[in-house]
Amino acid sequence: MFTELKREAYEANLSLPRHGLINLTFGNASAIDRAQGIFAIKPSGVAYAGLKPADMVLIDLDGKQVQGSLRPSSDTPTHRRLFLAFSEIGGVVHTHSSHATAFAQAGREIPIFGTTHADYFSGNVPVTRKMTSAEIGGGAYEWETGNVIVELFAQRSLNPADYPAVLVNRHAPFTWGNTVAKAVEVAVATECIAHLALMSLQLEPELSTIEPELLNKHFKRKHGPGAYYGQSGC
Amino acid sequence: MFTELKREAYEANLSLPRHGLINLTFGNASAIDRAQGIFAIKPSGVAYAGLKPADMVLIDLDGKQVQGSLRPSSDTPTHRRLFLAFSEIGGVVHTHSSHATAFAQAGREIPIFGTTHADYFSGNVPVTRKMTSAEIGGGAYEWETGNVIVELFAQRSLNPADYPAVLVNRHAPFTWGNTVAKAVEVAVATECIAHLALMSLQLEPELSTIEPELLNKHFKRKHGPGAYYGQSGC
Amino acid sequence: MFTELKREAYEANLSLPRHGLINLTFGNASAIDRAQGIFAIKPSGVAYAGLKPADMVLIDLDGKQVQGSLRPSSDTPTHRRLFLAFSEIGGVVHTHSSHATAFAQAGREIPIFGTTHADYFSGNVPVTRKMTSAEIGGGAYEWETGNVIVELFAQRSLNPADYPAVLVNRHAPFTWGNTVAKAVEVAVATECIAHLALMSLQLEPELSTIEPELLNKHFKRKHGPGAYYGQSGC
Amino acid sequence: MFTELKREAYEANLSLPRHGLINLTFGNASAIDRAQGIFAIKPSGVAYAGLKPADMVLIDLDGKQVQGSLRPSSDTPTHRRLFLAFSEIGGVVHTHSSHATAFAQAGREIPIFGTTHADYFSGNVPVTRKMTSAEIGGGAYEWETGNVIVELFAQRSLNPADYPAVLVNRHAPFTWGNTVAKAVEVAVATECIAHLALMSLQLEPELSTIEPELLNKHFKRKHGPGAYYGQSGC
Repeated sequence: MFTELKREAYEANLSLPRHGLINLTFGNASAIDRAQGIFAIKPSGVAYAGLKPADMVLIDLDGKQVQGSLRPSSDTPTHRRLFLAFSEIGGVVHTHSSHATAFAQAGREIPIFGTTHADYFSGNVPVTRKMTSAEIGGGAYEWETGNVIVELFAQRSLNPADYPAVLVNRHAPFTWGNTVAKAVEVAVATECIAHLALMSLQLEPELSTIEPELLNKHFKRKHGPGAYYGQSGC
Repeated sequence: MFTELKREAYEANLSLPRHGLINLTFGNASAIDRAQGIFAIKPSGVAYAGLKPADMVLIDLDGKQVQGSLRPSSDTPTHRRLFLAFSEIGGVVHTHSSHATAFAQAGREIPIFGTTHADYFSGNVPVTRKMTSAEIGGGAYEWETGNVIVELFAQRSLNPADYPAVLVNRHAPFTWGNTVAKAVEVAVATECIAHLALMSLQLEPELSTIEPELLNKHFKRKHGPGAYYGQSGC
Repeated sequence: MFTELKREAYEANLSLPRHGLINLTFGNASAIDRAQGIFAIKPSGVAYAGLKPADMVLIDLDGKQVQGSLRPSSDTPTHRRLFLAFSEIGGVVHTHSSHATAFAQAGREIPIFGTTHADYFSGNVPVTRKMTSAEIGGGAYEWETGNVIVELFAQRSLNPADYPAVLVNRHAPFTWGNTVAKAVEVAVATECIAHLALMSLQLEPELSTIEPELLNKHFKRKHGPGAYYGQSGC
Repeated sequence: MFTELKREAYEANLSLPRHGLINLTFGNASAIDRAQGIFAIKPSGVAYAGLKPADMVLIDLDGKQVQGSLRPSSDTPTHRRLFLAFSEIGGVVHTHSSHATAFAQAGREIPIFGTTHADYFSGNVPVTRKMTSAEIGGGAYEWETGNVIVELFAQRSLNPADYPAVLVNRHAPFTWGNTVAKAVEVAVATECIAHLALMSLQLEPELSTIEPELLNKHFKRKHGPGAYYGQSGC
C-alpha cells in the first residue's frame, strides 16, 4: 500500500539532482498522507542512481518506521517535526543547494529584492538562530533542528504558507508545500532567488528590500483568492 | 489561421529554457502579425514540457482574446503595450535570466564595457524608474509595467531598434526585435553582457564605459546601411 | 593481473570530468593494492575520451613502473609519497577543480562554515606552505610536492582520515580515501564546500568557523563507531 | 582542394560552443596551410548548427578570398595579421568566453597565480593598449586590431610560443598554437585560468603572482626540450 505516496516521494527525490540542487547524497524529500498520518522518505545515504520507489521508507507521526527494510534519512525527525507543526503542508524538501546554503552558512536571511522572490514568498526567507550545545549534543539533534524552525515561525508569527522555506543556521534550506512536488518547486525558487540576491548585493551592498506594494502585488498574483497567475485561481 | 504565428511564438518560448534563461515558468515570448494586429503569446503558468503550438493564445491590440482556451500569460498587457508603442518590433521576450535580473533588482543599468555589448546595443541597457503604488495597485499593473518602459524611451528619446532591451526596476528584463527569434537572441545577449559587466565591475569597480568610437564601430558593423557582419547587409 | 585495480583507477579517472572537476587533462586518480604494494595510475597527458582500463600504468612503492607501455602521470611521485605516508588510504585523486584551486592559489585554507563541510572534514581543509626553490628545482619536484603535504600533516598532527584533502599552495587540491571511489567523492565535496565558502565570505568577510559541537556532531554522524548516516555503521 | 584544412578549421569552430566558449555566433577559428600561404576561416554570422566543412572560406595572406561563396568572418583581417607576424603558428581562435572577456573589458592582464596558468603561459596573459579613434574608424578596424597585438608583442619582446594568448582591450581574447586544435585548447585554458584568477582576487585582492621557479618548472614540464609531461617530449 502507499504505492502512490512512495512514488511521489521517489519522484521528488529524483528530481533534486536533476534540478542541480543536490551533490552526492546531500538532501531528501518526503510526502505525507494526512489521512493515515504516514509519510514516505528517502533511505539514508543511498545513491540517487540506484533508488527505486519501493526503497522509500514509511514513517508514522510518532516516528515509528512502519515499512521499509532500509534505514530512513538521518534527517527524518526534522521532517516529522515540520509535519507535526505545520498541519497544512503535504511535503518537505531538504537540499544543500549552493547559493541558499551560502546564506545559511553566513546566518543571513535571503533579502527580498525583486518580483521573482515575491512570486514565492511574502518577505525575506528567514534564518533560524544557532542551535545550542545541548540541542546539538543531547541525542535528538535532527528533532531539535525541526524545533528551532518551529520556534522561529511561532515567535515571529510567520504563516508557513506565506513563507514556504527556511534556512537553518550553519546548515542549509528546508522547503515545503501542499504537495512534495510543490516543495521541490519552492526549493528551485529558493536557490534561484538566493543567487539573484547574492549578485544584487555585489552590485549594491546596501540595497533595500522591495516596496510593500510590489511585494504584495506579486505574491497575491499567485496566491490566495485574488490570484490570476496560471490556469486555476490558486 | 495564424498557424505560423503560433508556431513562431511556441518555438521562441521553448527556446528560453534551452538557453538557460528560464527557471520554472518565469518568462514568456510573443510574436505579432502586424497586418492583422494580432499577437500570439504563451498561456499563463503552463510547464514548458507540455506546451504545444496550439496552446498559444491569440490577442488583438485592444487586448481581446481572439483564440485559445487557456488564459494568456499574466504579462500579456506589458507585451501589448510594447507592441503599441514600438511599431516596428515583431516579437517581445520576457525572462528572469539571472545576471540581467540582478541588475534589475539593484535598479542599475547594464553598463557598456566592451564590444560584445556594442554588437547589440547602442549604449547601456536602460533601467526604468520604480513604479508608484498607484501603478502597482490600481488594477492594471502589467499594463503600467509597459507604460514605465514606454515613458523611459520617450523621455530619453531612445530608439527601440538601438536599445532592444530594458530592465524593469525590481523585476527583470524585456527584450524585442523585428522577429520573436531576434528577441530571443537579444535576451541571450542581454544575459551574457550582464554576466560580463558584473565580473568587470568586480575587477574594476570604477570602470568607465567604452569609448564612443568603439561603440559606434561595433554597433554599425552589425546594424544599419554600412553593416558588414553576417551574410546580408543588415 | 591487477585487472580489477586498473578498472577501479580507470573508472575514477573517467568520473572526474563527468563531475565537472577536470578541464582538458588536468588531474589524475590512482588506486593501490596494499597487499602487493602496487598502484594503478592514469598515463600522462592522455585525453579522457580515448582512455581504456588497460592504459592504466602500474607502479610499485619504490617508484618502479611494473606494467604499462605509456608514461605514467607526471604527478605519480606525489601519489607514491602519499601512499607511503598515509598507510590506510586506498586511493588518491588530484584535480584542478575551480573553487578549490582558487583557495590553493590564494594560499588559504577552506574555512569550515557549515554542516556540508563537517560531513566530510573535521576542520578547515589545510593548505601547505609554499615550496622552496630547492624543492621545486632540485629534480624531484613532484616527490617534494608530496613531502610538503606529509610535513604539514606531521607538524599539525592531522589524521588523514579526519582531513581527507589538502590544498597544495599555488597549485590545487589532492584528496584521498579508503578507496579511490571515496577519494573521488571527497574531491566532489571539496569543490562543493570551496564554492560555498567563497560565497559565504562574499556575504560575511569576517565570518567565523562553525561551533565545535556542530562540527563534531556532523562529522561523527558519518564517521567512526557512533555513525548513523547511511546504511552501514561506517 | 584544401579539404583537410577546411575540415580542421570546421572542427575547431564547432568545438568552441561545445566547450562553452561561445554564445550565439561570437567567435571564430582559422587554420593555415603554411606551404600554400592559405588559411581557412568561418563564414561571418552563420549559426554553428548549420555549418559544414565546405562552408569554410579560403583566404590568402594578401587577404584575397580564393574560395568560398560566403563572406568570411568579419575578424578575418585580425587572423591574417597574426599569421603574418607570428610565423610559427598554425591556427588562431577568437572567443568572447566570459571570464577572459571580463579581464579584457577591464583592461587587465590575467595574473599568473598558480600552476594551472603556468602549464600554458610563461607569465601573465597580456592585454593590449586601447585602440585610437583613427585605428577604429579608419576603415581597417580588424587589421588594426591585429596590429595592436603585434605591437604589444614586439615592444615587450614576447615570444608567441611562450604567450599563446592575448586580451584585446575592451574586446576579448585571441589565442593561437602550432595547430588550430592547440589554439582551441589554449582558449579553454585561458577561460579556465581567468575564472581561477577572478576568484583568487576575490579571496586576496592583493595576491602576488607566483614565484619564478614554480612558473618555470610548470611551463618547462610541458614545453621545450626538457618537457616530461604527456607521451612525447614536446
